[in-house]
Amino acid sequence: MNKVNRTIILASRPVGMPSKENFTMETGPIPQVNKDEVLIKTIYLSVDPYMRGRMSGIKTYVDPFEINKPLVGGVVGKIVESKNERFKEGDYVEGHLPWSDYSISKGKNIRKIDPNIAPISTALGVAGMPGLTAYFGMLDIGKPKEGETVVVSGAAGAVGSVAGQIAKLKGCRVVGIAGSQEKLDYLTKELGFDAAINYKSENVYVQLKEACPDGVDVYFDNVGGEVSDLLMRIMNFHSRIVLCGQISQYNNTEVEYGPRIQGKLVTHSILMQGFIVSNYSTRFKEGYEQLGKWIKEGKIKYRETITDGLENAPDAFIGLFTGENIGKQLVRVAKEDE
Amino acid sequence: MNKVNRTIILASRPVGMPSKENFTMETGPIPQVNKDEVLIKTIYLSVDPYMRGRMSGIKTYVDPFEINKPLVGGVVGKIVESKNERFKEGDYVEGHLPWSDYSISKGKNIRKIDPNIAPISTALGVAGMPGLTAYFGMLDIGKPKEGETVVVSGAAGAVGSVAGQIAKLKGCRVVGIAGSQEKLDYLTKELGFDAAINYKSENVYVQLKEACPDGVDVYFDNVGGEVSDLLMRIMNFHSRIVLCGQISQYNNTEVEYGPRIQGKLVTHSILMQGFIVSNYSTRFKEGYEQLGKWIKEGKIKYRETITDGLENAPDAFIGLFTGENIGKQLVRVAKEDE
Repeated sequence: MNKVNRTIILASRPVGMPSKENFTMETGPIPQVNKDEVLIKTIYLSVDPYMRGRMSGIKTYVDPFEINKPLVGGVVGKIVESKNERFKEGDYVEGHLPWSDYSISKGKNIRKIDPNIAPISTALGVAGMPGLTAYFGMLDIGKPKEGETVVVSGAAGAVGSVAGQIAKLKGCRVVGIAGSQEKLDYLTKELGFDAAINYKSENVYVQLKEACPDGVDVYFDNVGGEVSDLLMRIMNFHSRIVLCGQISQYNNTEVEYGPRIQGKLVTHSILMQGFIVSNYSTRFKEGYEQLGKWIKEGKIKYRETITDGLENAPDAFIGLFTGENIGKQLVRVAKEDE
Repeated sequence: MNKVNRTIILASRPVGMPSKENFTMETGPIPQVNKDEVLIKTIYLSVDPYMRGRMSGIKTYVDPFEINKPLVGGVVGKIVESKNERFKEGDYVEGHLPWSDYSISKGKNIRKIDPNIAPISTALGVAGMPGLTAYFGMLDIGKPKEGETVVVSGAAGAVGSVAGQIAKLKGCRVVGIAGSQEKLDYLTKELGFDAAINYKSENVYVQLKEACPDGVDVYFDNVGGEVSDLLMRIMNFHSRIVLCGQISQYNNTEVEYGPRIQGKLVTHSILMQGFIVSNYSTRFKEGYEQLGKWIKEGKIKYRETITDGLENAPDAFIGLFTGENIGKQLVRVAKEDE
């Protein structure tokens, strides 16, 4: 066991695109384990686009990160010392924990995960929060019906790739939007999307119209901005827009203006619903079970992009905004079997 | 009985604000009544903001009006001749009919109304399509809960005034937005709204924040544009935006840009739903009955603004966009008991 504990700290609030200077690393002793506590060794940590909002210092649905305090997010780790009767040494857990080599928990913010069901890393991706986000957003808000056309933006990401596959399982024509040829190939050749469009091409609208000859019934939106403006033009009567994320907007330094959409929503009786996954916390068990089943049956495939080293977590986070990841972006802080 | 039948014709498509030049009047003989038909004498006709969309020549949820063809809208009239067994001379009916002194129907697009339950004019307002629009929009989409704060824009209009009163019946704090002191007084002194705000004043946002100290749970939107931009800033977590109309946008000659709203919808899990009343056609009976009961019990009050003369229908329609009406704007084409 290392004798020091490194922690990534928010050094300053990003203005616009985050940069490495917004982060710093502190070292300290490995924390002491008190009564009812466990010591967790971080194996993987998750970088997620929503964390950009927490760095801005504005209260939304969660409190902002504090300056000079550790960043906190999804972590998969191993119990290395336990004074809590619910956990024993060697247990794998997933929870909301600091970006550190080691952390302490009283057991309330962690859940045990079974390494025999799926690789432990998936507890941060396809079988974790991003998978649940796709599951509840697509099924509970999007309500895709057989034969309908579903478009997913940010389709090659952790949430989008699952959302699209769920729509395929429901019998829909599924079109993904992503930012590289590699991602398009991944969507159509590995995940079974019916079509995929590069939003960086010149004729996105023409491609969209071709890929969606019957219009769009469900738009699962992870990106917002101009891509969504184009979608708005081909949404069908009684269609649903699942607002999951707006990554194109997270680094804006001022409010962006776009064509007003409400008129179209009225004339076409369109539903637009924003959500966060914690709205469905009472149904997480259902979600975990269904996703686990689909993964096991090979009905939902996934990929991970793994960056090695806690010290590289800021880079992995920043890379989310330039679209460097395919599937879930993780940081490997330690090897599983060390 | 007059010997001629006058009809208002769409002479040209309005560009921007409609003007009298977009309309013309034709005269012709009173139509002949064939088998299964009735001849209806128009008493009231309804001018409605949504008709502006149909004048533009763009297909939305209804076909556009055709140039040099009669305008068609809500009409209350009296059967003056019947060759249809379901209707007899003297019956009052409401239906979707041309802006004419007389019109022919085979009975499928009209419904009988009982002049003993409520004044026949209400079949075009509080007890008709606008009332149903308020009823389904507020209850089915807005879902106001006791103690919540509900804001209605276009609150003194035919739909808004009913929507706000329904929210009051559900035990909400109700704040109306309208465009004149007379309208504000109507809302707070006659209809029981808790507060009312003039959107033409300089400090609308400050007034909104004062009137809604706990934020806004339901926004019933008839107007759109900058008023709605302000509302977006004070919508609560899990709030609902009922998109009923966007009258501020109907005369735009190009798409208006506004601050993007999707980010707020995500972080606050907000629902935004556009609708048209015909989505609820299978439940119209329920709506008519409930509205009729509330009107009879004095729980829903209403006002009408009546313009006399078929020839003045274009002016009455144009006046909708400058907010000249309080409550339902009607045109009286003939006296009821003539």
